[in-house]
Amino acid sequence: MTAEIWDVIIVGAGLSGLSAAHLLKKRDAALKMLILEGKDRVGGRTVSIDIPAANGTDRWDFGGQWVGSTQTHILELIEELGLETYPQFNTGKKVHHMGGPCAKVRTYKTSIPALSPLVLLDLTQLIWKIDRLCATVCVRDPLMTPNSVELDSMTLHSYFDQNAWTKELKEEMGVASRSVFGIEPSQMSLLFFLMYSAAAGGVLQLLESSPGCAQESKIKGGTQQLSERLADRIGWKNVRLGSAVTAIWQVRYIMLSIVDYITSIPHAVMFCFPTAKIDYQPALPSQRQYLTQNMPVGHMIKFVITYQTAFWKEKGFSGEIVAGSSTDCPFCVTFDATNPSGSAALVGFIAGQGASQWTSKERRKAVLSSLVKYLGPEAASFIHYEEKDWAKEDYSGGCPVNVMAPGLLTYYHPSLRKPCGRIRWAGTETATQWCGYMSGAVQAGQRAALEVLAELCPLTLTEEEQEAVLQSQCNEDPPLQTQPSRPAHLYARKSVIIAALMVTGALALAQRHDALQKVKLYVTNMFVAAKSTIF
Amino acid sequence: MTAEIWDVIIVGAGLSGLSAAHLLKKRDAALKMLILEGKDRVGGRTVSIDIPAANGTDRWDFGGQWVGSTQTHILELIEELGLETYPQFNTGKKVHHMGGPCAKVRTYKTSIPALSPLVLLDLTQLIWKIDRLCATVCVRDPLMTPNSVELDSMTLHSYFDQNAWTKELKEEMGVASRSVFGIEPSQMSLLFFLMYSAAAGGVLQLLESSPGCAQESKIKGGTQQLSERLADRIGWKNVRLGSAVTAIWQVRYIMLSIVDYITSIPHAVMFCFPTAKIDYQPALPSQRQYLTQNMPVGHMIKFVITYQTAFWKEKGFSGEIVAGSSTDCPFCVTFDATNPSGSAALVGFIAGQGASQWTSKERRKAVLSSLVKYLGPEAASFIHYEEKDWAKEDYSGGCPVNVMAPGLLTYYHPSLRKPCGRIRWAGTETATQWCGYMSGAVQAGQRAALEVLAELCPLTLTEEEQEAVLQSQCNEDPPLQTQPSRPAHLYARKSVIIAALMVTGALALAQRHDALQKVKLYVTNMFVAAKSTIF
Repeated sequence: MTAEIWDVIIVGAGLSGLSAAHLLKKRDAALKMLILEGKDRVGGRTVSIDIPAANGTDRWDFGGQWVGSTQTHILELIEELGLETYPQFNTGKKVHHMGGPCAKVRTYKTSIPALSPLVLLDLTQLIWKIDRLCATVCVRDPLMTPNSVELDSMTLHSYFDQNAWTKELKEEMGVASRSVFGIEPSQMSLLFFLMYSAAAGGVLQLLESSPGCAQESKIKGGTQQLSERLADRIGWKNVRLGSAVTAIWQVRYIMLSIVDYITSIPHAVMFCFPTAKIDYQPALPSQRQYLTQNMPVGHMIKFVITYQTAFWKEKGFSGEIVAGSSTDCPFCVTFDATNPSGSAALVGFIAGQGASQWTSKERRKAVLSSLVKYLGPEAASFIHYEEKDWAKEDYSGGCPVNVMAPGLLTYYHPSLRKPCGRIRWAGTETATQWCGYMSGAVQAGQRAALEVLAELCPLTLTEEEQEAVLQSQCNEDPPLQTQPSRPAHLYARKSVIIAALMVTGALALAQRHDALQKVKLYVTNMFVAAKSTIF
Repeated sequence: MTAEIWDVIIVGAGLSGLSAAHLLKKRDAALKMLILEGKDRVGGRTVSIDIPAANGTDRWDFGGQWVGSTQTHILELIEELGLETYPQFNTGKKVHHMGGPCAKVRTYKTSIPALSPLVLLDLTQLIWKIDRLCATVCVRDPLMTPNSVELDSMTLHSYFDQNAWTKELKEEMGVASRSVFGIEPSQMSLLFFLMYSAAAGGVLQLLESSPGCAQESKIKGGTQQLSERLADRIGWKNVRLGSAVTAIWQVRYIMLSIVDYITSIPHAVMFCFPTAKIDYQPALPSQRQYLTQNMPVGHMIKFVITYQTAFWKEKGFSGEIVAGSSTDCPFCVTFDATNPSGSAALVGFIAGQGASQWTSKERRKAVLSSLVKYLGPEAASFIHYEEKDWAKEDYSGGCPVNVMAPGLLTYYHPSLRKPCGRIRWAGTETATQWCGYMSGAVQAGQRAALEVLAELCPLTLTEEEQEAVLQSQCNEDPPLQTQPSRPAHLYARKSVIIAALMVTGALALAQRHDALQKVKLYVTNMFVAAKSTIF
């Protein structure tokens, strides 16, 4: 048994841990740092894999892949590491299938889904209500939100049930929850959903691929490069792969971190979610322990299917398909995934309930038959189908994020970022901007690094940073703007939506078939006109 | 590394694992059996500890302690093992404190709490509604329950919010949830609560200490004796304590169970909830994996405080105190715990949110000051205060039971009892009668043992047992009565309650202070009269 002395040990070589290490090294190159990672690779919930493609082989992201223009933390990192982004392709017809296997498959070209005016009105009022609630949420301390206990005591499903009028919209919202969280609306706290949306600047930002939203751009060469380049800068000698931490003992001034048979003595340890089962001595405070044990992780299976040509583009499709749980389609959403090099591919997600329902073989067969159904027979002639089931990934157990079931925020949130002795908590789940996303991982890693610096070498911190560390520990919102600003076009869209609300309201009064047809046409045209003005 | 060959390995030497082993041994004494237990004792979530008391030292249960007369499985075991029960003492004044630290502390003598007529009416209608819902629940397969997805998509809190009229009743229901599950109503699925209540024969059975209910009797000498005597019969040489299983590998016909450095090859493995983190090769099916990861466990701290004399009895108190979360009292409920030998004691529970809010020192102080407030200054002169925080217990992580958060039953319940290769699942969480209780642990262990026997030596099973194994595996209710019969006095009480409903309904119309006083008196008298007739 060897015992080595380190200044900082970081548990987890994902984006959060490596961003922390990077900041620590930039501030004090003399710090002795060790990064321990259970997996045999860096990147955590980002991984880029080579698979057979039109031009031999090419690389795709099988974990986190998108970034948006309001995600400042990840964008700065991308720039610093010399990487480039390119926009998500979303031009052409989008496929939309809800209401059961035999329901009509609809297509549409705008960013407004092909919904009946009544469902559109319903969507409008629901998004408006959610955004109004989001505006009341205090992201740093959700318990400060008015009526927080009530909001945290109900599921997102109950909220949709009480606030969406139409069955169709409830199905839409199920797809949204599955696509964003890998989890059903019944498994999540309403307050958690509001906090998550508020940390992204609003609920539409989570769902869309337009500017400012979560699915806006991708990184050339894949997102795992971020972690690899960070490890290059930190020095690979400081990163130990295949080294799962099994115990952390804090005994007075000595802290031990135990990795199989290596014992290390660090001055600070930084943990990145999701934590594996670790023996803490002394035990973590109950609040923290319950939080760690009880945050369900999403279940997401991501697949990439490569083709000789992007036949869907030739046929006028964008590659985006949205399918409800009532259909016989295993995936909830697909997108075009053609690489900048031109290798044609589609990417899709099988998530939530659907991810547990199929055997691997059945799933692949059903994905293919659904693609044929929605995009045409060409979908059957693929080069390669590859999927990654994140539930089977050691030290993650799921993807994209650990959420909070009802009641967790109310009782256990205060312990989310609170240090336990010399243990600090990072990981995207602890972020206050774009929490759950790659950008949140970077923000959380940097915040935890500042906490460690404030302890070990406070002179390396600016006054603002010292203030920020103090604020993050007292769990209060800083006086100035903390949430990413909302893109102007979303405000503009909201006005359009409110106008639509009024028009479609009139429709509800008229209730005549011909009136319905006219208003439907009018609403659709209004959206198209609005979009062309805004973008 | 040694490899031994066994017929059956049972993981967990709690009541469920040992009951299974006992049945296996009775049916086929030649079976080679090994019971592996991570803790250094048998008993799982039952443990009896000696503490200083009036007559030197005496023993109290710090885990499961009560049994009820409809819990046939545990009662048969108690009889078989030559143990005796004695009734929970509940004669005298009960203390009831809700509505904030300054609200009036009320006392009452009947089993009907000291509530205003309006709250009593509210309680009546709520219990009536819940019992009606319970009657529709299919315990073996909750997905067969009408409207199951909706019932599982909402929290118990949301149900109370929508169906209880008064704030007081909502606080009462919080206490009930905490006392029974160690968890807040916001953290639990409504359908799970209904299934749990139905498996006990109704919701009142969970809450009361009257005949047929969960808190009816205790076992002389403590409940851990059940496990110790079972181990005596099975043979202690077959029970390995301090042996936590770290991996289970099933490779074609060979199954390996790995305990640190011992490797064993069994024909069948039986697991008892709650499972520690174990490396399964191949991985468990996703459904099963998610279920295991995502069932939150209750947080309960149980304390026993010993006294020279049972001063509360002398003062006319029963020792039962119920305190709401709005008060400054850490415990939600206490009972008299005087042993049959005469050693005076009180037992209490700090549960749910309250269990995470206090440091150990503050908690003890607040418990004592609350006992002084409710029972008088004599409470300050105790002999010994001992508590057990089940959240700190290795291989349990909490107590009394792992519950299901919203959405879990709908998506993952089918995997609850479904064997995975040669792994069988026991543990009280898998029971269909008194699930979550000691009786459920025995039932589940015996069911899993029959499953193993049906595989390894089917001739030892009766026809009825073979039928039962088939039924349990196809997840359907047997044609005959499956739920414990409801004690007649509860039906009688229900009639009284409905009468009260009508009377108090009239009150709501009258809305006059004097009318309120009269009706309150009338309702109270009616309950007292009814109780003396029934019991």
